Amino acid sequence: MTENSQLTLNVYCKHINDALKALTADRPYLRENIVEAMEYSLMAGGKRLRPVLMMEFCRMCGGNAADIVDLACSIELIHTFSLIHDDLPCMDDDDFRRGKPSCHKQFGEATALLAGDALNTLAFEVIAEAAMSDKISPQAAVMLVSVLSKAVGVNGMIGGQIIDLAAEGRQISLDELDLLQQNKTGALIEAACVMGVVIAGKYDMIPAAAEYAGYLGRAFQIVDDILDVTGSFEELGKPIGSDAEQDKSTYVTALGIEGAQQEADRLTESALNVLRQFEDHDFLFELTKDLLHRRS
Amino acid sequence: MTENSQLTLNVYCKHINDALKALTADRPYLRENIVEAMEYSLMAGGKRLRPVLMMEFCRMCGGNAADIVDLACSIELIHTFSLIHDDLPCMDDDDFRRGKPSCHKQFGEATALLAGDALNTLAFEVIAEAAMSDKISPQAAVMLVSVLSKAVGVNGMIGGQIIDLAAEGRQISLDELDLLQQNKTGALIEAACVMGVVIAGKYDMIPAAAEYAGYLGRAFQIVDDILDVTGSFEELGKPIGSDAEQDKSTYVTALGIEGAQQEADRLTESALNVLRQFEDHDFLFELTKDLLHRRS
Repeated sequence: MTENSQLTLNVYCKHINDALKALTADRPYLRENIVEAMEYSLMAGGKRLRPVLMMEFCRMCGGNAADIVDLACSIELIHTFSLIHDDLPCMDDDDFRRGKPSCHKQFGEATALLAGDALNTLAFEVIAEAAMSDKISPQAAVMLVSVLSKAVGVNGMIGGQIIDLAAEGRQISLDELDLLQQNKTGALIEAACVMGVVIAGKYDMIPAAAEYAGYLGRAFQIVDDILDVTGSFEELGKPIGSDAEQDKSTYVTALGIEGAQQEADRLTESALNVLRQFEDHDFLFELTKDLLHRRS
Repeated sequence: MTENSQLTLNVYCKHINDALKALTADRPYLRENIVEAMEYSLMAGGKRLRPVLMMEFCRMCGGNAADIVDLACSIELIHTFSLIHDDLPCMDDDDFRRGKPSCHKQFGEATALLAGDALNTLAFEVIAEAAMSDKISPQAAVMLVSVLSKAVGVNGMIGGQIIDLAAEGRQISLDELDLLQQNKTGALIEAACVMGVVIAGKYDMIPAAAEYAGYLGRAFQIVDDILDVTGSFEELGKPIGSDAEQDKSTYVTALGIEGAQQEADRLTESALNVLRQFEDHDFLFELTKDLLHRRS
């Protein structure tokens, strides 16, 4: 990534982080406890990929990215809610998230459950508020609520979590793995891109944004799976595949490391080709390539 | 309640139950499992108080109640999501709900968690869809999303659940009990009434609807607390207050049974007085009195 693009990304992330903090800090809440838990997980240091995508698609379609940072946060609120609930003992039972104790280890299960619920709802409150304060039209707000709620629901992210639960402890086919990925992580990435286009009002670009998101989401997941294997190999100095989760179906178990890498390369190339339909796409072009070559 | 009012209530409930079933049944879902869990809890036989209130306030303000049954379901989706999550082991750990195994006992904890999450999101999808299909204006939809999301969030129902958790195992003051009730159950009842007025577009009646809801919500909770004591007394033939939850603060522990009954009477009278500001209020007048004298 060029220095210039890295600077742009840093500015985006600073805007997003400030807005996320303000969303929890600036309100008179009944109980500090749950707000602390929400802020703890929101500020645990994600890549902010989804809000960056929303802001950038808005900008590429003629909108002003800086004006929509609150709206961009709506998708990070949803993403964070899903991580908190995913980590709960009845789900993946993860004690750590991004190197820190997971929300329920830090605040207790009940508070983590409710913090996730509150983040889910807050995402829709944020969209309504953007319309109430005339930042976007009511028509645009309705489309955003529609796109986001469908992406979260049983035919989107939550559907993917259910497929994931059903896949536990058994090998699944590549088709099933694709369906799982498209729903569990792909739906929200697609929503981020489409929402940016909707806010800019350039509706004819929605299909292209969705197509780009489809390639990016799958490539992103494949690289995640590769890093899970090579990362634990590097960290622990033990043979690839010897970790506890070796029974889990991933793109590496389905395609092998080399095959997975080739597929990620192919998908990234397709994503970049779609991006060429958008004016002034240089930054997202570089970010997309960067995501493929990331080390974490 | 007169025969005529009972008939009206039955018609309302039939409409609501049909619409709730259609909301889960009519869609192509990825996984049957979670939809079964959602439907199981939705159809477990609630009073449908909140959607009935929304439809009736809409009708009293000049709207058509039958046209907004899907919107009325949005609040029942939220109510059901809160019950499912409330019953989870990390919350109240209830094995039964309305005489049937609770959602997580029937479908497992993970599916129950996700079913609750999906119902939360579906409520907002339903509102967006009503605007997308021109049943309501985008402006009205934005107001509904705003009212509902605020009623659910940390300054509403979820805030009340947090206060409830913090109150566990200790006696709380009447003021704290009021704050708990106003948030945990009152906020959603108020949202139901206000949303009905918003849909009808008679915004000047919002304060009256909110005032009515405040009285009704508190009276409803007091009667619940009385029934919890007299109900278990009648059922088990044991002295009042000897059950396992005797440490829990309720309006009965705070005011005594007689004092609680008097307070419920007073609040119901206040609610009925506010109702007189609405034209054609006979049905809701009777329903309100009925809720005070209910036996379950």
